[in-house]
Amino acid sequence: MPSEPRAAGSLLVDNIGELVTNEAGEAGPLGIRRRAALLIEEGEVVWVGPAADAPAADRRIDADGAAVLPGFVDSHAHLVFAGDRAAEFAARMAGQPYTGGGIRTTVGTTRSATDGQLRATVRRLHDEASRQGTTTIEIKSGYGLTVADEARSLRIAAEVTEETTFLGAHVVPTEYADRPDEYVGLVCGPMLAAAAPYARWIDVFCERGAFDADHARAILTCGQASGLGVRVHANQLGPGPGVRLGVELGAASVDHCTHLDDADVDALAATDGGTVATLLPGAEFSTRSPYPDARRLLDAGVTVALATDCNPGSSYTSSMPFCVALAVREMRMTSAEAVWAATAGGARALRRTDVGVLRPGARADLIILDAPSHLHLAYRPGVPLIRRVLRNGVPR
Amino acid sequence: MPSEPRAAGSLLVDNIGELVTNEAGEAGPLGIRRRAALLIEEGEVVWVGPAADAPAADRRIDADGAAVLPGFVDSHAHLVFAGDRAAEFAARMAGQPYTGGGIRTTVGTTRSATDGQLRATVRRLHDEASRQGTTTIEIKSGYGLTVADEARSLRIAAEVTEETTFLGAHVVPTEYADRPDEYVGLVCGPMLAAAAPYARWIDVFCERGAFDADHARAILTCGQASGLGVRVHANQLGPGPGVRLGVELGAASVDHCTHLDDADVDALAATDGGTVATLLPGAEFSTRSPYPDARRLLDAGVTVALATDCNPGSSYTSSMPFCVALAVREMRMTSAEAVWAATAGGARALRRTDVGVLRPGARADLIILDAPSHLHLAYRPGVPLIRRVLRNGVPR
Ligand SMILES: [Zn+2]
Ligand SMILES: [Zn+2]
Repeated sequence: MPSEPRAAGSLLVDNIGELVTNEAGEAGPLGIRRRAALLIEEGEVVWVGPAADAPAADRRIDADGAAVLPGFVDSHAHLVFAGDRAAEFAARMAGQPYTGGGIRTTVGTTRSATDGQLRATVRRLHDEASRQGTTTIEIKSGYGLTVADEARSLRIAAEVTEETTFLGAHVVPTEYADRPDEYVGLVCGPMLAAAAPYARWIDVFCERGAFDADHARAILTCGQASGLGVRVHANQLGPGPGVRLGVELGAASVDHCTHLDDADVDALAATDGGTVATLLPGAEFSTRSPYPDARRLLDAGVTVALATDCNPGSSYTSSMPFCVALAVREMRMTSAEAVWAATAGGARALRRTDVGVLRPGARADLIILDAPSHLHLAYRPGVPLIRRVLRNGVPR
Repeated sequence: MPSEPRAAGSLLVDNIGELVTNEAGEAGPLGIRRRAALLIEEGEVVWVGPAADAPAADRRIDADGAAVLPGFVDSHAHLVFAGDRAAEFAARMAGQPYTGGGIRTTVGTTRSATDGQLRATVRRLHDEASRQGTTTIEIKSGYGLTVADEARSLRIAAEVTEETTFLGAHVVPTEYADRPDEYVGLVCGPMLAAAAPYARWIDVFCERGAFDADHARAILTCGQASGLGVRVHANQLGPGPGVRLGVELGAASVDHCTHLDDADVDALAATDGGTVATLLPGAEFSTRSPYPDARRLLDAGVTVALATDCNPGSSYTSSMPFCVALAVREMRMTSAEAVWAATAGGARALRRTDVGVLRPGARADLIILDAPSHLHLAYRPGVPLIRRVLRNGVPR
């Protein structure tokens, strides 16, 4: 990823009605400060305090009493692909069940696409997410499934984000359908070697019809040996070994978590936040599936993140505000829990301490809402409420 | 309402990948044309045809292969109010049931507001809806509930829309709590007289806890005698007489329709589209209530519209795209049915033939999507997909 722009001089964001800092303490889990201001220098937050005490600065943004939040951290997105599957979506909504087989459709169109086409889609969706307040986004490969196509997917993803994930084990591609062991060997061998220079993470779709526990363990272990961090697509379509495998391997996050048993929840809770449960309610919305039981996880003390799962098959939304609204309506998270999960939770899921919070030393990634409170993200569903986005202190 | 801007000269919208005309026929209920163009003169559509045959024009907008739809017709919104009820929303989401009592909270803040404050809110929400593709919006009074406050609510609403609705019978205000007959007399007498000059429609919240059938009939009949068209808030919170009363009085629309019995559905079907069933899924989303059974209505031949019910208590969304996505996911409408209901359906609910369609003679109210098909409105939930909005042929 190229070095990013950083504005010169100091910038004061002033007249903030409600500042969500995510510094837990007396002000609750969101660390809300009222009538606050925030000073930015060289792309970093350097001061947070009462608006009345705001220091002088070279430039000033008047938040006009609005809410200011850390930018959203979307820790799970699949943006490198070609084609869309609107017709498959329409068929599913008309009553056909989602089997996951549709991934192979996108593999075909992605392999046929030029680098320029893939780059244009990644940039379009990255920009779209950014307009909706996402300032950190994880992007996975997984629609190439050849050595060359996985490597170029990650190379293109790395042009827009430092959070890139090698998902060669998304599904077994058609040409290996009767030789899954051989495909696992390819993933662990030449594909990993070609992908690793562009990837920070390795991920496996551990699910009936995709990769079983043994294959998933083999792949994730190889990835770890190459210096990649572990994340797992786990327990989305049914119960399975994915969550416990992720915990066993010290995954930063296990994602979906729709079908959990008590042992899964206990295993996650025992990591004390080391392994985050990332919930992707856009997928349940777009596949008309039951939502994960967020309350059970939260009440057990599991650290929960929210992400979009943006992909052309099962969740073609790039909207973190939409995921927050679904989390509140459908998963009975409070607005505070949902906003925390979409910001600080996403940061934990990516093992980042510099984003998802607004305190001195953090990156100046923040959003100014068209609303006085974070509550409005769920209270005003579907409404574009992101008035302004700063990334590294630079207005987008 | 002041006369609206109309661009001089002709404007060609060219290179349309998918044009939704809502001219039913061989091209299905949406009357979809591919590779089309559309010519606008003096705020009206004057020609629709293949892009290859497009006539010359003074100006040209290149739709770049995107989908073009009639602007959304939001036939049910409550935009004249002061204050918000985010805390009530949060409490309800945490498990407290929605009783409808919260309307009186907004009545208090609305009465205390200045004209300027009310005007600012109406304009802010009208603009917000407009950015999301709404080109015709109905706005109700109903948070004033005094002669003066209802009249000023409608006067302010009439500054931005011709579709204004007198809803003095929203609830019985506190000061009349033990004298509902007297309040009905006020509504039918001096309040109606003061409101009628600014209103096109009359509406009653016919529901247990609000107005019963006798009171509703009295009020709606008085409104008709003053030249107002009839619409009814009916069968939202439970079964009741509202739908059949609306049909009996020739209402243009009965709105909510969440709790219907067979006789209600039969009565609506028998009007042959004369009385539209307007569904407001934003209300069910934001009150965590069961959704209306849209399929039962559609399968019985009832004409269905979708609207936002935008209001600070039970549905604070201004987003018609969000309502379309909910209709598909939660009410099992097809995308075509939902898009029709949000455009042509809303026009029927307002007895308008000049909007909700794109054919010669119609108003040039249209939206250009950031997507190749109307399917994307549900396929990409929460994503702001409205690239461009023209109203009366004028880009907003
Ligand atoms: Zn995924
Ligand atoms: Zn209403």
